[in-house]
Amino acid sequence: MLVTDTSTYANVTLDPRANVYFDGKCVSHTFHLADGTRKSAGVILPATLNFGTGAPEIMELHSGACRVRLAGSEDWTSYGAGDSFSVPGNSSFDIEVTDPVSYVCHYG
Amino acid sequence: MLVTDTSTYANVTLDPRANVYFDGKCVSHTFHLADGTRKSAGVILPATLNFGTGAPEIMELHSGACRVRLAGSEDWTSYGAGDSFSVPGNSSFDIEVTDPVSYVCHYG
Repeated sequence: MLVTDTSTYANVTLDPRANVYFDGKCVSHTFHLADGTRKSAGVILPATLNFGTGAPEIMELHSGACRVRLAGSEDWTSYGAGDSFSVPGNSSFDIEVTDPVSYVCHYG
Repeated sequence: MLVTDTSTYANVTLDPRANVYFDGKCVSHTFHLADGTRKSAGVILPATLNFGTGAPEIMELHSGACRVRLAGSEDWTSYGAGDSFSVPGNSSFDIEVTDPVSYVCHYG
């Protein structure tokens, strides 16, 4: 393997058909680990959006800047590259993106 | 491997840091095959854009609808899911996207 950067996801299966949400303010690609675990790698462009969850999610940020308010909370928390935040299942969060956010979403 | 869909890319290394072009009208993720070959999987949202090439490119479409005019040509050609088109190196093309295009770009 020529790619040695530890911040990449190795040995995955990538679905090239992108998911487009909010008129393109959020775009993601689904991928699966070798054990079948589903994840998605996406981008959220500058905007303020509300995302709902089915399964619990961990949002892992790889670039950009945003602040996030979980459902039921009054507090906004800022996140950037290297940060992650957890969202309960069957819930939602508001996200205000100021610099395009690259993320990997982990489910379950 | 639980993923058997032949339209996916298996055993790749995915860089989760997205590339954002044209204020987000084009977003892509770089990935590498097991042999180190670099490709990108991206989305182009509805817009008319001009892309330059360094290396020659093959653009492989997985969803959406667009028409394309290569540099030096007067002709627009329509493409959709399952289609691909080739662009010479050190050249450019105009693309008019009417329905978000998912693509894989092959270089070289």
